[in-house]
Amino acid sequence: MSASYTLEEVDVDALDDLSAGAVLLATGGGGDPYDAWLCTRQILSERGPVPLLPVDALDDNARVASIGSVGAPSVSLELLPSVDEAGRALQAFEAHVGYKLDAVVSFEVGGGNSMIPLMAAAEAGIPVVDGDGMGRALPEAQMMTFPIAGVRPTPALALDYAGNTATFETDNTTTYERHIRGLTQAMGGMIVAVEHPMDGRTLKNAIIPGSISFCRHIGSILRQHRGNIGRSFDPLAEAFNQSNYGALQHLYSGKVVDYSSRIEGGYDVGEATIASFDDQQAPLTISIKNEYLVARQNDKLLGCVPDLIMVVDFETTTPINAERLRYGQRVSVLAAGCPDYYRQPHALEVVEPRCFGFDMDYAPLETLLANHTPLPG
Amino acid sequence: MSASYTLEEVDVDALDDLSAGAVLLATGGGGDPYDAWLCTRQILSERGPVPLLPVDALDDNARVASIGSVGAPSVSLELLPSVDEAGRALQAFEAHVGYKLDAVVSFEVGGGNSMIPLMAAAEAGIPVVDGDGMGRALPEAQMMTFPIAGVRPTPALALDYAGNTATFETDNTTTYERHIRGLTQAMGGMIVAVEHPMDGRTLKNAIIPGSISFCRHIGSILRQHRGNIGRSFDPLAEAFNQSNYGALQHLYSGKVVDYSSRIEGGYDVGEATIASFDDQQAPLTISIKNEYLVARQNDKLLGCVPDLIMVVDFETTTPINAERLRYGQRVSVLAAGCPDYYRQPHALEVVEPRCFGFDMDYAPLETLLANHTPLPG
Repeated sequence: MSASYTLEEVDVDALDDLSAGAVLLATGGGGDPYDAWLCTRQILSERGPVPLLPVDALDDNARVASIGSVGAPSVSLELLPSVDEAGRALQAFEAHVGYKLDAVVSFEVGGGNSMIPLMAAAEAGIPVVDGDGMGRALPEAQMMTFPIAGVRPTPALALDYAGNTATFETDNTTTYERHIRGLTQAMGGMIVAVEHPMDGRTLKNAIIPGSISFCRHIGSILRQHRGNIGRSFDPLAEAFNQSNYGALQHLYSGKVVDYSSRIEGGYDVGEATIASFDDQQAPLTISIKNEYLVARQNDKLLGCVPDLIMVVDFETTTPINAERLRYGQRVSVLAAGCPDYYRQPHALEVVEPRCFGFDMDYAPLETLLANHTPLPG
Repeated sequence: MSASYTLEEVDVDALDDLSAGAVLLATGGGGDPYDAWLCTRQILSERGPVPLLPVDALDDNARVASIGSVGAPSVSLELLPSVDEAGRALQAFEAHVGYKLDAVVSFEVGGGNSMIPLMAAAEAGIPVVDGDGMGRALPEAQMMTFPIAGVRPTPALALDYAGNTATFETDNTTTYERHIRGLTQAMGGMIVAVEHPMDGRTLKNAIIPGSISFCRHIGSILRQHRGNIGRSFDPLAEAFNQSNYGALQHLYSGKVVDYSSRIEGGYDVGEATIASFDDQQAPLTISIKNEYLVARQNDKLLGCVPDLIMVVDFETTTPINAERLRYGQRVSVLAAGCPDYYRQPHALEVVEPRCFGFDMDYAPLETLLANHTPLPG
């Protein structure tokens, strides 16, 4: 089977586009990829490119686990990753479970977590699966496609900045999330975790496929059109139209006039208010828990999780992570639908706005924006 | 060697005295032993008595680990132990490390943690070592004699009320303490931990010996003299005189006129104020972090950790745990020195008042009370 696929690779040159696209899909979360990008660049320079395996090319009996960092993204601005921590986490996981992994898959395609699997895979000499467990970034483990598809979260392993490790055993990913989050806070606020081990057959029904390639693709568009993408989002919109995410929507452009954020329970929690340049429109408010979760204008809901709310620099269309958002920034707010996987009722149960404390039902972006002004351009 | 020792046992009948003595030595902490006592009684009824092994009788190559519960004692009033959780924690630890233990040793002789090792040992059919890692109760793992003697804290395992487990790997017990405390909070506030694995040779230099027997002994004195020990603490004082703890001191008798406690960082933190019955003496204040740590009258220090500050019912001399202390209770406050082990400079470094946030040097009880009114009687 796998012979019929052309094996793609992620090499050093692909990292710029991949990490840029990853920040857009991170919808504010996932952690700033800059330091992880530096580390990944070094590893790939030494070890060579990492094979990027389409999930369908994965052997049904292949042993796969998910890898990424866990913590409040703002912590990663100060607690820098080391070049070998993803690789060491993978090794420690393999020692714990007593078998070698055939491939790794990303928790979430967004932000720094787009780089962590590459670092681990390069060190171990195994491929990264093209896809991830969120198709975006989301703050909690039980929100991943893997547990939604019934995959057990453990055996799982966490490795901290000092090389200390902990392992977990529980049947329930919500419980696992509570445990690893508590430990992450005790371990300095940011750790690398290896979890949700499964076989290839299971992963095929439990993944957002193709998201790594898509990330690289939109990253290349952002790069090629930087500075002149300006008021026309056409090239980006075209890429989204051809993807799982559907039409790209322009929600708002303006200036950040208020931004608050605090670390609460291991998450960055806050709110951003964006006012229009001409003061003619009511300001847009974005509620944040690691990610941009809900966009509102007055009482009108414009978009909500699990659909994607993305903030980009107004001039350059450079995606902006929540922890990089600052007073006075000129930004555009974009939105897109989530992959269909998350619109299944049993998936919505764990990612709808109520799961984040918002007293509202999920409403698909297309419904909310039926009468919305289209993309400028 | 071991043949020259008469092997003692802990049977069902010994549990009353053992748990009563354990609450006294717990100096306010260690958790209320009532529920653990019920569970231990059931296990010992079914499985028979547990051998109580003098540490000198332990084979140098014997494999020993320390076991106890970790959390805020107040949580144990609501999150009740189950009869098999100590046994299951031990089994899970053995599965994790890949060998069987020859004996278990108690974290701390105080409170509920006097019962946990008996439960585990009865289930596993192995002895409990007569001694413990504190000779009292203290709130943090690095304060135990084991790490002070250089024993590595891990591999260690935590088991929660639902049977979920986590394991830890770190060289440093202060780090381990931070990790397991963070996880304990996420696991509901109270867990059973198996940690500080070591061989018999190591344990012999890293234990407060004989503390289980001593606990049972003072428990029997408390029982025999209940109600008439009254104003004379003679029988108890005699037992202390012949022990590692030295002279028993009567610090104060009066009524609890103020008591505050909150759960902070996984600990019970608070303060109790006791006023004399005749209002002729200045009130006594006890600062609490799980345990009774510092006793003061006005600005005069009467006793401080690691020396023992104990609160008993004024009428019955029943020891009272900090989480059971209530407004209006009539109590006596007693004190005794700590075992010499803790007065070594490198031990004091991790248990002196500064380790608990008090801006004061440790002063031995005997020095503080050189001119103190002796025990009434």
